Amino acid sequence: MDLLLRDVRPLGAAALDLLVRAGRIAALGPRLAAVPGVPQEQGGGALLLPGLVEAHTHLDKTNWGLPWYRNEVGPRLEDRIANERRWRAETGHDAGAQSLRLARAFLAQGTTRLRTHVDIDTDAGLRHLHAVLATRETLRELMEIQVVAFPQSGLLARPGTAELLDEALKLGADVLGGLDPQAIDGDAVASLDLLFGLAARHGKPLDIHLHESGEEGARTLDAILDRTETLGMQGRVAISHCFCLGDVAPARRAALLERMARLRMSVITTGSASRPVPPLQECVAAGVLVAAGNDGIRDTWTPYGRPDMLERAMLVGLRNNLRRDDEIALAFDAVTHAGARVCGCADYGLEVGCRADLVLVQAQNVAEAVVARPARKLVVAGGRIVARGGAQQAAHPASTNYTYP
Amino acid sequence: MDLLLRDVRPLGAAALDLLVRAGRIAALGPRLAAVPGVPQEQGGGALLLPGLVEAHTHLDKTNWGLPWYRNEVGPRLEDRIANERRWRAETGHDAGAQSLRLARAFLAQGTTRLRTHVDIDTDAGLRHLHAVLATRETLRELMEIQVVAFPQSGLLARPGTAELLDEALKLGADVLGGLDPQAIDGDAVASLDLLFGLAARHGKPLDIHLHESGEEGARTLDAILDRTETLGMQGRVAISHCFCLGDVAPARRAALLERMARLRMSVITTGSASRPVPPLQECVAAGVLVAAGNDGIRDTWTPYGRPDMLERAMLVGLRNNLRRDDEIALAFDAVTHAGARVCGCADYGLEVGCRADLVLVQAQNVAEAVVARPARKLVVAGGRIVARGGAQQAAHPASTNYTYP
Repeated sequence: MDLLLRDVRPLGAAALDLLVRAGRIAALGPRLAAVPGVPQEQGGGALLLPGLVEAHTHLDKTNWGLPWYRNEVGPRLEDRIANERRWRAETGHDAGAQSLRLARAFLAQGTTRLRTHVDIDTDAGLRHLHAVLATRETLRELMEIQVVAFPQSGLLARPGTAELLDEALKLGADVLGGLDPQAIDGDAVASLDLLFGLAARHGKPLDIHLHESGEEGARTLDAILDRTETLGMQGRVAISHCFCLGDVAPARRAALLERMARLRMSVITTGSASRPVPPLQECVAAGVLVAAGNDGIRDTWTPYGRPDMLERAMLVGLRNNLRRDDEIALAFDAVTHAGARVCGCADYGLEVGCRADLVLVQAQNVAEAVVARPARKLVVAGGRIVARGGAQQAAHPASTNYTYP
Repeated sequence: MDLLLRDVRPLGAAALDLLVRAGRIAALGPRLAAVPGVPQEQGGGALLLPGLVEAHTHLDKTNWGLPWYRNEVGPRLEDRIANERRWRAETGHDAGAQSLRLARAFLAQGTTRLRTHVDIDTDAGLRHLHAVLATRETLRELMEIQVVAFPQSGLLARPGTAELLDEALKLGADVLGGLDPQAIDGDAVASLDLLFGLAARHGKPLDIHLHESGEEGARTLDAILDRTETLGMQGRVAISHCFCLGDVAPARRAALLERMARLRMSVITTGSASRPVPPLQECVAAGVLVAAGNDGIRDTWTPYGRPDMLERAMLVGLRNNLRRDDEIALAFDAVTHAGARVCGCADYGLEVGCRADLVLVQAQNVAEAVVARPARKLVVAGGRIVARGGAQQAAHPASTNYTYP
């Protein structure tokens, strides 16, 4: 967990050296003196990035590395939810092995902080939760995994789910999840009262999937904002997807963003190319933090996605038509610093004292790293070298019995 | 130009062997007999795809492989056009070297047919045209490059341009290009009359950039359809971008598509994530062929893009929310068979008699090839092996003095 990394360019700045002691950044500067017993690594002038942040994925349900899942699923949200429940029951999907496999693949591509929503419903109970908590434990020294207890089949819609979420939070889930209080649960007021009550009782932050569009979604967002304010949850609520911000009238959007900024409510986006999305530049200008995530990767919902947060930043950039270097920096921020703030990650960044989560890529600057998504030359997690050239290194617990697919 | 390729799965079908003689597919079948003097190549059960088709790019203006171009360009189309003209004048951009470099990179990623729009205006004259015609000639045995004479700065808008286009067609440009007859030229009727007149005089097909949106674009499209019908240009006109099909009312779109299908007019899309786009499934259902292209790659317009048509198919799939295997096949078609038909490529495909343009990737099926975009295990162009593992092979004219960046 000690390392002297030489000749690297932090975010494109002039080349310098970086000293890691006990898993943290201990010094940064030109030509640092060698330290006896501390191994040295030549950066060769590569671009140095902080560990990447995946703010929204579903590790538990991925088919990553498994035989191809032939997708013949119907178009509606409800079809996809029902199909997945059936698939889960029929295949005996191993959420433990699969979440570990995908988390390791993320790590090899430089993601060191990750928030994952874990399915909890009255069919599968807490099976996926136990599986992902085990993965979190296995990778604890290398990766910050935040587990969201997520009612994928609805909360009010399936009685018994609230009790399971309560149990999940007792078992150590980090965040309470929600899902379309109006569109899925059919009663935003009752659903949100139940959800916020649970969060308050456990003192946990909230991360709510909001696919509801237009004015329906905006009204739900109003209700979420009301409860955030009333219950003093400022800075503790994130809205995932938040499609409604992409298709309400501009004045309505501006008013919502103004209130979100005031209550320090953040947005987590995939940069979906086929749905209205929260406009990144407008959110940032209003003071609303935006993080980015893949959502599901290679699962029954979608075959797309790759555990590469530089590629996700590119997709967010394409969706928001970010072409100038200073615009692309905003997409990069969503998978690094802003992402870490949205998820409440501690000790994040490239400053002295931060956790030594470091990514080296061959690129001239941040904008090129986003559009070209070069191979990860080196990934350091908590001060340990975990991957070289996109391939995991054998000498750490995360790589046992694992081959990158 | 002879080759016996063993154990490959054409588009995911059962494994068989494929014999190439004199640059064409001569036989396909299980356990073909070896032919004296014909080298053999083991496919190892890899997925076999036909050569990929790039239907819309701008080889002449790319900075691919050059130092990073810092983009600080204003947001309007006019800003970008003016900025590029300035950049071209100031930097002495080498369109010959750059078009060759990018074409070779496309080839290494399996693209064997490519349509490129070449800037022609009263500032630069025919400089870029000569450069790209030279690239076309250099790669003639390996790659079909179609050169579009393209009035990037407008046609009516810049007097003298029509004469240059006329000259370009005499010099061997394959296709006549157009650009926003209403939005840029300010007079769709006069602009289209001039353009169609030129095309008719030279007997060349048309490929018109149409960024105009909504009803403005639809009216221009009407005018293009009128002239196509009147002048008997059925099957000879393609519309690139055609954003208006993405944002007119559904009934209007259906009527336009019906007429386009009847006049065999096709659409070429990038699957732009930030603009309305022609809905792929609706176009196909109406009988309108859709091809796909990157548009510019790493130029003064945009830093995005990669000479990889499987990645372009993925972006088209994401934009059109194609998730089922049978839906993803439509995106794949746009970069293969449909793309070839739109561009009027001869002898295209995996049947006996077709040009031996072959791509091998490690993937279970076409859908996985699109979402995972695996390294090209082998690329054969006109019967010659031109790349292995994404890297060009030295022993062919396309690779002289070239290193893949």
